[in-house]
Amino acid sequence: MTPDSIPPLDVSYLQNPLPDSVPVNHHPLNPISYLLRAALVYPDKLALAHPDAEQPAFYSYSVWAQRVQNLAYALIQAGIRPGDRVAVLAPNSPMIADAHFGVIAARAILTPINTRLTPLEIAYILEHSEAKLILVDHECLHLIPHTNVTTIVCHDTSKPGDPYEDFLSAGRKFSSERGWAGLDVEPNEHASAVLCYTSGTTGRPKGVITTLRGSYLAAVANAFEARINHESCYLWVLPMFHAAGWTFPWANVFACATQITIRQVDYPQIWKHLLNSGVTHYCGAPTVQIGIVNDASKQPLRNPVSAIVAGSAPTAQLISQLEQIGIKPVHTYGPFTRCYDQPTWTSLSLEDRAKLMARQGQSFATAENVRVVYPPKHEDDQELIDVPKDGSTVGEIVTRGNIVMKEYFKDPEATRKAFRGGYFNSGDLAVMHPDGVVQIMDRKKDIIISGGENASSLAIELELANHPHILEVSVVARPHPKWDERPMAFVILRPQYVQTWAGNHAAFEVELKRHARTRLPGFASPEWVQVVDKLPKTSTGKILKTDLRKIVAKL
Amino acid sequence: MTPDSIPPLDVSYLQNPLPDSVPVNHHPLNPISYLLRAALVYPDKLALAHPDAEQPAFYSYSVWAQRVQNLAYALIQAGIRPGDRVAVLAPNSPMIADAHFGVIAARAILTPINTRLTPLEIAYILEHSEAKLILVDHECLHLIPHTNVTTIVCHDTSKPGDPYEDFLSAGRKFSSERGWAGLDVEPNEHASAVLCYTSGTTGRPKGVITTLRGSYLAAVANAFEARINHESCYLWVLPMFHAAGWTFPWANVFACATQITIRQVDYPQIWKHLLNSGVTHYCGAPTVQIGIVNDASKQPLRNPVSAIVAGSAPTAQLISQLEQIGIKPVHTYGPFTRCYDQPTWTSLSLEDRAKLMARQGQSFATAENVRVVYPPKHEDDQELIDVPKDGSTVGEIVTRGNIVMKEYFKDPEATRKAFRGGYFNSGDLAVMHPDGVVQIMDRKKDIIISGGENASSLAIELELANHPHILEVSVVARPHPKWDERPMAFVILRPQYVQTWAGNHAAFEVELKRHARTRLPGFASPEWVQVVDKLPKTSTGKILKTDLRKIVAKL
Repeated sequence: MTPDSIPPLDVSYLQNPLPDSVPVNHHPLNPISYLLRAALVYPDKLALAHPDAEQPAFYSYSVWAQRVQNLAYALIQAGIRPGDRVAVLAPNSPMIADAHFGVIAARAILTPINTRLTPLEIAYILEHSEAKLILVDHECLHLIPHTNVTTIVCHDTSKPGDPYEDFLSAGRKFSSERGWAGLDVEPNEHASAVLCYTSGTTGRPKGVITTLRGSYLAAVANAFEARINHESCYLWVLPMFHAAGWTFPWANVFACATQITIRQVDYPQIWKHLLNSGVTHYCGAPTVQIGIVNDASKQPLRNPVSAIVAGSAPTAQLISQLEQIGIKPVHTYGPFTRCYDQPTWTSLSLEDRAKLMARQGQSFATAENVRVVYPPKHEDDQELIDVPKDGSTVGEIVTRGNIVMKEYFKDPEATRKAFRGGYFNSGDLAVMHPDGVVQIMDRKKDIIISGGENASSLAIELELANHPHILEVSVVARPHPKWDERPMAFVILRPQYVQTWAGNHAAFEVELKRHARTRLPGFASPEWVQVVDKLPKTSTGKILKTDLRKIVAKL
Repeated sequence: MTPDSIPPLDVSYLQNPLPDSVPVNHHPLNPISYLLRAALVYPDKLALAHPDAEQPAFYSYSVWAQRVQNLAYALIQAGIRPGDRVAVLAPNSPMIADAHFGVIAARAILTPINTRLTPLEIAYILEHSEAKLILVDHECLHLIPHTNVTTIVCHDTSKPGDPYEDFLSAGRKFSSERGWAGLDVEPNEHASAVLCYTSGTTGRPKGVITTLRGSYLAAVANAFEARINHESCYLWVLPMFHAAGWTFPWANVFACATQITIRQVDYPQIWKHLLNSGVTHYCGAPTVQIGIVNDASKQPLRNPVSAIVAGSAPTAQLISQLEQIGIKPVHTYGPFTRCYDQPTWTSLSLEDRAKLMARQGQSFATAENVRVVYPPKHEDDQELIDVPKDGSTVGEIVTRGNIVMKEYFKDPEATRKAFRGGYFNSGDLAVMHPDGVVQIMDRKKDIIISGGENASSLAIELELANHPHILEVSVVARPHPKWDERPMAFVILRPQYVQTWAGNHAAFEVELKRHARTRLPGFASPEWVQVVDKLPKTSTGKILKTDLRKIVAKL
């Protein structure tokens, strides 16, 4: 580490920035507070490491806080004003970590963009968000349109001459004169922090706005629930551009932990860090977790690692594989619920325990109550009626409270619909178990209506995934002349069984249907099985069922 | 455990209570949320144990939540309205734990009263707070005046026939009809939560009001910083009536931990629980910690226990003794600062490390920046100027932010003075070290002005406590014809040295002065040393220097 020679951290940063009207006993919640505190408490501790770049970078908390301050001043000098959007298009790297603090320190709204979108989709997001400035990694430059918007390119070198580094240096001139005291704290904690776009699997992507208060409280809960502390080391497997990295860019700093960024999901590289870098925590969707536990480099870990799993439910197979190599899975559903393992579960078989662990669980620390309600009777029906706690009646998950988004950006109609009944209507279909635990059955649009019955594609996938030859599986509806719809399964075989069934996929179909009939009702058993080499996925590893439906439509 | 047969927890509690004007993404911060969530996630887990009473009580989270709900309804039925004060006068026991939730669930303000005050002092607090109802333990009944205020006596039996239990039963009738949905959530998170009275060592006790928001955020920070989680077991050594138990009644429930209440600070009883009850955490002032490590029942602990130490700084001796038996001290200064041990400290000698650990540290998670400023130049001076970070210039600790009190109750003048310059002026004199660490030198009123120099009585005590024959020491100013003031030390000898110096205290005085001269400047060395059997203390174990000054005045 070669810390830049910087002036000592100015601890008087809170001296001026709040208006006199803010009372002594009120400080607006804002994740920027975490970084200032971490830099004060652990100035020399490694905050951010980017070890695998051509030019590795290692920043202590005091140096990183200085860089973030520089970024905030640079943005302000470039004309960014409170409430403006600043886009960032980059793989996991210091710039996007900086942006999670520097942009909100400038009182602007961070707009992270998925690097795996097409140029057309990115152009739409830049236009819709009206971003005033774009921070772009050199490898993503070809993805953005010719634009008049100020664009700062980062070559990820952390050296002078890199345009991003020069941009920081420009901010530095002002920051060294004025310090944190020159940066006003946003007095309204309900102001917008981040504008993230949905993956847009159906129609145009929607812009989800979250507040500073919500980000602060979600990050605190994530640090607490994942037991991240100042001795922890977090590996960035999840792309940070996805939903503000599930708020972990802030949670790690709240906890004064070390963060390691790697530019892509590369399993041998992940294993290198799991084995040698003292990693204690990482996040990932089940499909990425599957990649990790099936990689050739895998080895039992000496020190326990916690894996936060979200996006979809982990299968029994995956839970078992993670635990066998010393990775403890923590299954969460946004920062809304978490599956809390109960003391009594230790006496259960792994399969029974995994079934319980696959449920989404109960309300998260700092989140409010989660409910499952009947669908509306008509479009303007505002009444929310809870489904019985019977583990079988399917309703929609709704929630409210500080962690809920503020609004869909520039879409009051979509916001109004999403906030039906004074709750956020998640679009996830679920049951409520007698113990108050929520279990997602499907996204509204993924349910299969087979012979008048609602078949949950997720429930079918979880049962099929128990077949020992299956690596991954996805199930969608396929039109059927008699039953209206029937499930069709797309299956990836485990490498060691690919040869077994080569040239004989029809026999595997028979075998899998036999497996399904013993576990699923007839209407939920797959009518068709197709063995494939890979499944279409989003950047975060979510399977794109829209793409599978397009394949089905052509059959 | 014999859980009362109760209806299942109503999870729709958030359905009605908030006014329509509260947006979907806002829930007013309130510690009551913790209990409802804990009862949902861990309904059958032991929440509150009171094992040593004649009638032991053990409440699971669902049963306890039901009792708290009953208390809230009982208070409302008894005429308690939002903002009313409800006093509680009890040793650590289920009733005072209930009150920390039930009173705020009824939107009233909890007023805990120190059980070791005199009847006159208690009468003053009841009158000043205008308490509308008093919850009183049977052993404290003689302390309260004849009054028209509704008084509910608790015999700590947890059985029908106990007036407190009958009071809960009266509330139960309403609670079973309406559940949590019948209890409005306080929509204003800046509403008052607790009214605690200062010990009043100088003049009348002042009423300190804290907010729901501040209580929520302080409790979250305490759980996070102390690493309390759902596997933790917290032993109530600190009296819960003291400053709302440093917010731990809520912190433990946020973390879904188990709490054990014991009615008095009884060292063999504390050791019984440390050794046999799976205790992982407790809080206590240094004097109580000294009692614990010097008790005859002490044994090395198999499982690590964290001791949160506050009130005054732990000495090197104490830190060493705690660590030797497996207790990890965590030194905090309110929920404002904590002494964060640095990785580099492991290579230091115990004495050097203890010196660093005796400092009050840096800002706590969820707290804001702490500053040390020069005293005001004149009464209306609102300007706050930081002292240099030199570790020697003495100023006053000031802070602001969400954890700071709301006001002194019915005392706008005292509030105005305390909030000089838009910060809370703590009255604690301290230095700021070059590493941004605060170290308290003294309370303003405890500083000794010796030959024109400011001598910190705390600093003198820490050095004298290093003498191997000393168990406890307190230093106050004594008038001196030449030097204006000089330090006088009151000393308790360790039991094994009492005999050594019996009848020869003058020789010990010579010995201690020799020890002091090698470590302290002349103006700070004690001019007089008096060996005593015990020191006057507040209920929380703080030494009452006012009482020592009275002794000095008579010399």
